[in-house]
Amino acid sequence: MQGQPTVAILGGGQLARMMCAAATRIGVRTRVYQATDTGPCAFCADVVTGAWDDADALRGFLAPADVVTLDYEAVDLTTARAVMPSTATLRPGAQTMAWVSDKIVQRERAAEAGLPVGPTRACSSLESLREAGEALGYPMMLKRPRNSYDGYGNRSVASAGELEDAFAALGGQGVLAEGWVPFERELATMVARRPGGEARAYPVVATYQKDHKCDAVEIPAAVPPEVAQRATALALRAAEVYDCVGVVGVEMFLLADGQVLLNEIAPRPHNTGHYTLDACVTSQFENHLRAVLDMPLGDTSLLGPAAAMVNIIGSRSGPSRNEGLGRALAVDGASVHLYGKYDVRPGRKMGHVTAVGPDVATARARAAKAASEIQP
Amino acid sequence: MQGQPTVAILGGGQLARMMCAAATRIGVRTRVYQATDTGPCAFCADVVTGAWDDADALRGFLAPADVVTLDYEAVDLTTARAVMPSTATLRPGAQTMAWVSDKIVQRERAAEAGLPVGPTRACSSLESLREAGEALGYPMMLKRPRNSYDGYGNRSVASAGELEDAFAALGGQGVLAEGWVPFERELATMVARRPGGEARAYPVVATYQKDHKCDAVEIPAAVPPEVAQRATALALRAAEVYDCVGVVGVEMFLLADGQVLLNEIAPRPHNTGHYTLDACVTSQFENHLRAVLDMPLGDTSLLGPAAAMVNIIGSRSGPSRNEGLGRALAVDGASVHLYGKYDVRPGRKMGHVTAVGPDVATARARAAKAASEIQP
Repeated sequence: MQGQPTVAILGGGQLARMMCAAATRIGVRTRVYQATDTGPCAFCADVVTGAWDDADALRGFLAPADVVTLDYEAVDLTTARAVMPSTATLRPGAQTMAWVSDKIVQRERAAEAGLPVGPTRACSSLESLREAGEALGYPMMLKRPRNSYDGYGNRSVASAGELEDAFAALGGQGVLAEGWVPFERELATMVARRPGGEARAYPVVATYQKDHKCDAVEIPAAVPPEVAQRATALALRAAEVYDCVGVVGVEMFLLADGQVLLNEIAPRPHNTGHYTLDACVTSQFENHLRAVLDMPLGDTSLLGPAAAMVNIIGSRSGPSRNEGLGRALAVDGASVHLYGKYDVRPGRKMGHVTAVGPDVATARARAAKAASEIQP
Repeated sequence: MQGQPTVAILGGGQLARMMCAAATRIGVRTRVYQATDTGPCAFCADVVTGAWDDADALRGFLAPADVVTLDYEAVDLTTARAVMPSTATLRPGAQTMAWVSDKIVQRERAAEAGLPVGPTRACSSLESLREAGEALGYPMMLKRPRNSYDGYGNRSVASAGELEDAFAALGGQGVLAEGWVPFERELATMVARRPGGEARAYPVVATYQKDHKCDAVEIPAAVPPEVAQRATALALRAAEVYDCVGVVGVEMFLLADGQVLLNEIAPRPHNTGHYTLDACVTSQFENHLRAVLDMPLGDTSLLGPAAAMVNIIGSRSGPSRNEGLGRALAVDGASVHLYGKYDVRPGRKMGHVTAVGPDVATARARAAKAASEIQP
């Protein structure tokens, strides 16, 4: 892979867009396969648009690849794996994808490896879900096993009376029911891991959710050093348990007694790590590429004392207009990121703002100010 | 220009490549017109390859543009300007380009505006060059008026005996002869300037040349605050004198008595400003796009105390191999940038390394270490 290695990315969302920009830094070539041509990678990447079961299109797309990686874990890999050239490697690998792309399997793997997790039940029927409610108590969080992210495919239920509607709304095929974890704080960290197991963790951050979706991140998390160490150790261990290659986002719960539980992982660059683009020596996107190419990992340290990230979420439907962008760009310390999505929808992630500052509160205020100015 | 404005970039070198990556952050669409298809923008941008006088290709390329900007100032704009849609604007403008793209005209404009400059003579013949030598003394720096950059088109002459060869080597048509300036240090700064004149300057940096070409940059320059203020004021004034829109690189000389002289300007992102990608809140590439789109300029402050940049220069001819990249990537604090040029040539800029650190010496050592590991 000397000269300019080629990484083929399956899926053309904002993670692919930011990977492609990172790739240009270190002389890596990227290409993106996407199902629709109005996504974030249009106009800024070497893009092929086709169906996930179009063997000819995928074969041509994958032919020059040294490594194949993913924009999101729900991609149907069946055809892609069948037509991938023998000289290319899928990273993260098929075993990792099998362990993480179904949330029930993911939780089973964690329990089997002895990772600290909250109480859960896998439920394949409304009947078993009712039993789970009796065992775990309310409120419960219900997650569709596959393709649930960003608040899609998640429901919290306050009582048994809500189970039937929620089960049906999540597809009626099965859910992972999670007992309520009385957390003090939600933490996350990104881990970059090479095929041989060499790994580096980013700082532990505090995450804030709204409507089951990441709203804001504060960097670093205001927790005692021993809590940060425990969270970092858990994240590194989780990356190992799932044999992740590339960058993996690890979401955790901090309990009142200082215990840290694993919530879930995503084997790819992650919303809670977007701040690394503006606040760390090496971004999560560059480190993902380095890791999947088995190149030395970059420095994950912060460039300054504090940072914060606030998402830009859609609140209407129609073509995106990005009104107020000028006012957002005028906020000092802030870096505005827009994903170039053609259409906005209520709840859709359209961009984010990272801000740096002398302390977390200042950074958060700057990021919130800039993000609030933009009506995508 | 609401939604996603389109910037068309004439020229597909590394500056265009880095502009395109910056554009993806703020939701700006870019397209690149280039003469050869093996340049830095292949695989990572929306690229059209054609001749500079191909009116049909340029017309199609420019049709969706809101703003047209330049990768390098030597682009022949004749055809592009003739076929540019009436709704698009060239930035920097034609007057700025006329003032700066010929070094003799550029120097005349500076003198006319009263900017402090060293002694020079415009020479159209070997005869007048000999006279310049007598007037200015030796050594002299000779610059071809057009298309001289990165050591191409520049010669220093130590005595009258070298004039004939140097004059011929520079094309034999005319040169700008510069008397030797006994500088203590070479300084530079980047200025971002909007059409209405609003401007922001980046920190003043110290630059180090090798073979008439930027070798390294230290950020910030180790000069007294009043010198930095004087250099910043001169740079802002120069951006105004040439009515620059976009980012402009301003090179200066610091004399022993604290006086700061203007050396030359380049009306575009500049090698001495590449460090801004890794060490400032807003990079010069993003601020160039903001400025040409007449959007608010981003924060030009440093994220940490110190940084340094060292160029990666070719020393052989052939396809680029980037040997030693792994060792370079392993240097903590360093960010490696490769431009994706297909071929390496002796003296060709193939990439650069920026490093951050607690002080300039540490940052410089890290950048130098990483850059020295790569044999492009």
